[in-house]
Amino acid sequence: MKKIAILASGGNSPAMNNAVITLVRKARYYNLEVELIQDGFLGLFNNQFKKPDLNTLSYFYANGNVQIGSSRFPQLQEKPNADKCYENLKARGIDCLFVIGGDGSYNGANRMFIRGMQVMCLPGTIDNDVQNTDLTIGFSSALNSIVSSIDAIRNCFDSHNSVCIVEVMGRRYPALAIQAGIATQAEAILTVDNTLTTSQIIDVVKESRKNGHRSCIIVATERLYGRDGLPSLKEIADEIKKTTGIMARYNVIGYVQRGWNPTAEDRVLASRMASYALDLAIKDKGSYSIAIRNNKLVHNTITDTINYPLKATNKEVVIDFEKYNKL
Amino acid sequence: MKKIAILASGGNSPAMNNAVITLVRKARYYNLEVELIQDGFLGLFNNQFKKPDLNTLSYFYANGNVQIGSSRFPQLQEKPNADKCYENLKARGIDCLFVIGGDGSYNGANRMFIRGMQVMCLPGTIDNDVQNTDLTIGFSSALNSIVSSIDAIRNCFDSHNSVCIVEVMGRRYPALAIQAGIATQAEAILTVDNTLTTSQIIDVVKESRKNGHRSCIIVATERLYGRDGLPSLKEIADEIKKTTGIMARYNVIGYVQRGWNPTAEDRVLASRMASYALDLAIKDKGSYSIAIRNNKLVHNTITDTINYPLKATNKEVVIDFEKYNKL
Amino acid sequence: MKKIAILASGGNSPAMNNAVITLVRKARYYNLEVELIQDGFLGLFNNQFKKPDLNTLSYFYANGNVQIGSSRFPQLQEKPNADKCYENLKARGIDCLFVIGGDGSYNGANRMFIRGMQVMCLPGTIDNDVQNTDLTIGFSSALNSIVSSIDAIRNCFDSHNSVCIVEVMGRRYPALAIQAGIATQAEAILTVDNTLTTSQIIDVVKESRKNGHRSCIIVATERLYGRDGLPSLKEIADEIKKTTGIMARYNVIGYVQRGWNPTAEDRVLASRMASYALDLAIKDKGSYSIAIRNNKLVHNTITDTINYPLKATNKEVVIDFEKYNKL
Amino acid sequence: MKKIAILASGGNSPAMNNAVITLVRKARYYNLEVELIQDGFLGLFNNQFKKPDLNTLSYFYANGNVQIGSSRFPQLQEKPNADKCYENLKARGIDCLFVIGGDGSYNGANRMFIRGMQVMCLPGTIDNDVQNTDLTIGFSSALNSIVSSIDAIRNCFDSHNSVCIVEVMGRRYPALAIQAGIATQAEAILTVDNTLTTSQIIDVVKESRKNGHRSCIIVATERLYGRDGLPSLKEIADEIKKTTGIMARYNVIGYVQRGWNPTAEDRVLASRMASYALDLAIKDKGSYSIAIRNNKLVHNTITDTINYPLKATNKEVVIDFEKYNKL
Repeated sequence: MKKIAILASGGNSPAMNNAVITLVRKARYYNLEVELIQDGFLGLFNNQFKKPDLNTLSYFYANGNVQIGSSRFPQLQEKPNADKCYENLKARGIDCLFVIGGDGSYNGANRMFIRGMQVMCLPGTIDNDVQNTDLTIGFSSALNSIVSSIDAIRNCFDSHNSVCIVEVMGRRYPALAIQAGIATQAEAILTVDNTLTTSQIIDVVKESRKNGHRSCIIVATERLYGRDGLPSLKEIADEIKKTTGIMARYNVIGYVQRGWNPTAEDRVLASRMASYALDLAIKDKGSYSIAIRNNKLVHNTITDTINYPLKATNKEVVIDFEKYNKL
Repeated sequence: MKKIAILASGGNSPAMNNAVITLVRKARYYNLEVELIQDGFLGLFNNQFKKPDLNTLSYFYANGNVQIGSSRFPQLQEKPNADKCYENLKARGIDCLFVIGGDGSYNGANRMFIRGMQVMCLPGTIDNDVQNTDLTIGFSSALNSIVSSIDAIRNCFDSHNSVCIVEVMGRRYPALAIQAGIATQAEAILTVDNTLTTSQIIDVVKESRKNGHRSCIIVATERLYGRDGLPSLKEIADEIKKTTGIMARYNVIGYVQRGWNPTAEDRVLASRMASYALDLAIKDKGSYSIAIRNNKLVHNTITDTINYPLKATNKEVVIDFEKYNKL
Repeated sequence: MKKIAILASGGNSPAMNNAVITLVRKARYYNLEVELIQDGFLGLFNNQFKKPDLNTLSYFYANGNVQIGSSRFPQLQEKPNADKCYENLKARGIDCLFVIGGDGSYNGANRMFIRGMQVMCLPGTIDNDVQNTDLTIGFSSALNSIVSSIDAIRNCFDSHNSVCIVEVMGRRYPALAIQAGIATQAEAILTVDNTLTTSQIIDVVKESRKNGHRSCIIVATERLYGRDGLPSLKEIADEIKKTTGIMARYNVIGYVQRGWNPTAEDRVLASRMASYALDLAIKDKGSYSIAIRNNKLVHNTITDTINYPLKATNKEVVIDFEKYNKL
Repeated sequence: MKKIAILASGGNSPAMNNAVITLVRKARYYNLEVELIQDGFLGLFNNQFKKPDLNTLSYFYANGNVQIGSSRFPQLQEKPNADKCYENLKARGIDCLFVIGGDGSYNGANRMFIRGMQVMCLPGTIDNDVQNTDLTIGFSSALNSIVSSIDAIRNCFDSHNSVCIVEVMGRRYPALAIQAGIATQAEAILTVDNTLTTSQIIDVVKESRKNGHRSCIIVATERLYGRDGLPSLKEIADEIKKTTGIMARYNVIGYVQRGWNPTAEDRVLASRMASYALDLAIKDKGSYSIAIRNNKLVHNTITDTINYPLKATNKEVVIDFEKYNKL
């Protein structure tokens, strides 16, 4: 192996920079040449390669942006586009492509793999919704950003003796909502597995009032309410106010979750995965997705990863919603 | 003076705790008795007094909640309610009432004053919209909370090369938007004095793209767009996307701004104002609102403060919007 | 089981509050009576029990203090003192004692256990040096506090093109140093397993300079240098300056590491362990120490835990120091 | 004016980046050429000019480093060195030099000024010890970094019922110590104007214990104790322990204070000063130091600034130490 390329793909997540920096530092140690690809597969399609300036890049180890840019590029699903991306890699003399991203990015990586490129995938997404791995790069930072926001919201609603429904990310996989809820003593956590009716939510509010809580914070995942016949968060808040007389509002956390500066945990995970990936790529010449299982770094074939359904693993923090809502 | 009472009123703001703690500590030094009134004028109306537990209270010096609770109580405008509040103070033997809050709270304080109570007002509101004072307690913390949020949003949108319109508080007085915008190098700041049309906003986006900016962050005050014939932030974002092809979103910061843990500046301001207020109350026996002008603590009569229109003072950070939007 | 008591013991660690709050909330759910013991075994010895005020206590879920106080009480090793502690528990009608702390605290808990008390131990210490568990309550918060400090130190020394040796906690078990070093791209990490000589450290500085790094940050565990014939950090810094001409300083992080507000991870861990412990205590009536292994909550007998030597488990982040120092 | 140069000089301070970024953005608006000088006057001496890469530079607006580097260069006091610096500026065609730094830097700027260069000085130092200005760039960030550290230390010592002496920066001008002390309810603040004896410090500890405080935090400025016949902080802590039986420690905050990411206030101040400076430089052609007085941006001649003694202005937060220590 003489030359590697690195790209980030899909929604950005904190600590992607740390993976890139570690790959570049370690490639220097191994005397490998490195090309950074700007803005994911879109940039690869457009031939946007650049040499890393390691010293400038290193400044971003504590920063929640993605210095090499990321993008969504659904056009990669069309064969001629994937062909062009592959040819751009070959023309540049790339021996191995490192892809940092979530599910969709793994599919993109697979398109390069089946054309003959060695690819190494690192799981980078805030939702922790990548199959096979206990943790993804970015989850810890997003979780702590939510917790910082809810701590402040709790302060505000404690002061006023009232109710706030807080919407957080994690569409398919509600790990952010569940853990942020536990960390902030949320009075209820609404997910796809615990989709309470307005009337049940009002019961939670009353129960919390009975237990002497001043504020009542209810965490809900995005894209759950306000569709499929369910009332919107605003409608629920209005109904709480109408029924109980208690002031109730809602608050969407938003993109703050995706750009928070990376926690120690995310940085360590990203650096370790990158380091493991490069060592493995050199030694083995195969194509893999990197994961962490039971505190150990492991790898799976790309094919296995792509075909593996997202499902509950022992990584999950499970709560007994029935009981939780009464505490 | 033998006995004082303290209440917080109106929307909560960070560092109100620091004012209360300083008043209680200093009252102990002067051998004054203190009663804390729970939840503002509502609590006063309901006779909710309690003795301070200074050691528990002190734990909250770094916390953005309002430990004694705050509330809005518009019913105070009715004469019998104000009478009852005043009588509750007299019955409890209160010599001087300390009120921490914004404009509305000053009006409430005035109702006690004209009935014969000595009152001292401290300006506590995140918007900095209290007349006569260069700074209010809570402004610095709210400003820094916004800046933390926008820094993260900037990271996210830098990664994706796109546009975000961020809504912040500061309805009447756009100091939060202006200073947060400057602090985060916002590409435009939309206030009551700079209400751009969608087409002008699109020009800003294009200009920033021409200047090579990856992300474009536009800060807007709440309750400006989406009413009075102006498009909503969502509509503007959609139009940006449609016209320029650049991904555009909006993000409302929300209640995080009101419960952020207090900055050093807010804590120092709150403590100094409280200290000054108690010294003055003892020495002078008059009723005043406390303010800071040109770095010096000063006081104004309640009447003057109530009647003084909110207007530009030299506290304002003024920007030349025309030029700013082109930088 | 009708009545439980809770104490924190040994050096404080962030998120101990979250364990206490969860125990108290869940005890209420189960209709158990709770007594909080002030200041650990010292308070138990002095009969300092108090009923929890859950609503005040709950305010501290985001705060890095230990609301019930902690202490070191080596006198517990004397039989009459342990007897008295046990009798105080019996006299108060306690059925089960919950102890949150590190190694030493587990020994204290064991003294109550062998006298006939049901005890449940939760691992609370920032060093992660409790046998049998992959993570202790407080480690994540301490780690992130160090990283925040080093990020700032990095900024300072990048600006000035110079070297800083940073001392962190973790006497016996250098997990904090290793992970903080990785997270901040430390140029070297000095632990009991990688105790470089001054001359080797100077080589690291020169290597980093050769690689174009402006700053050079070296992380060292406490109580390593400046004893047993090793030079102090100050002496090493002075020697670096003298030999290389590059400005070099040292910085001890100190107690900031022990009082940082708890991260989401620590809060979740503390709450889950507390919840698991109470369920188990009710169901099983045995005495256990709670742990997390491979992402699953588990329990061990007190005897096993006490006798188990602290050793490498798969929880460790291992680095190849030889290679690391050259990256 | 066609071409400007920018350098940072002396000890780094947070938000220097924001001044540089604003100068570069605004220079582009005015079609001025810009040269950045690396590492202050040392870099000027060595002819280290570079063109700004505004887009990379802009990423650092939220970062507490000094992207262009800073340095101390006492050799500038020698005439031939100052001559060389001046000639390097002329050879590069620089019309105006912008210097961001403290006192010493102003003297350096003056050396260029008296040789004929137009110079504009911006006050950048964490200590707030520049004459004539109410605030310097970096003070707010350093203050808030100290407060974050002391909040954590307070949590630790509250848990253990004990005493900590915290050393902070601010050698000549104790504004950091005083305001950080007020913000954290320090039990005493030790400065050049309030240098208590060990015995007086022990009285403060006893008084605080009598008032029911669990922890006792004493803030002291650097380079005060441990010299000129005064005991060191360690000796004072040991004596407190010996005399009162209360555990007592000391903690030096260190370089964290100099590299904290900039607060909103510092960023706004830096941007406004830079903007004002460039407008003034173009309009007036004179040489000035920029300052803020009573919330207004103002300017003074370089000569006046150099000769003006550092003294109390109305910027000072004054406390009555006698009374403070008893609260």
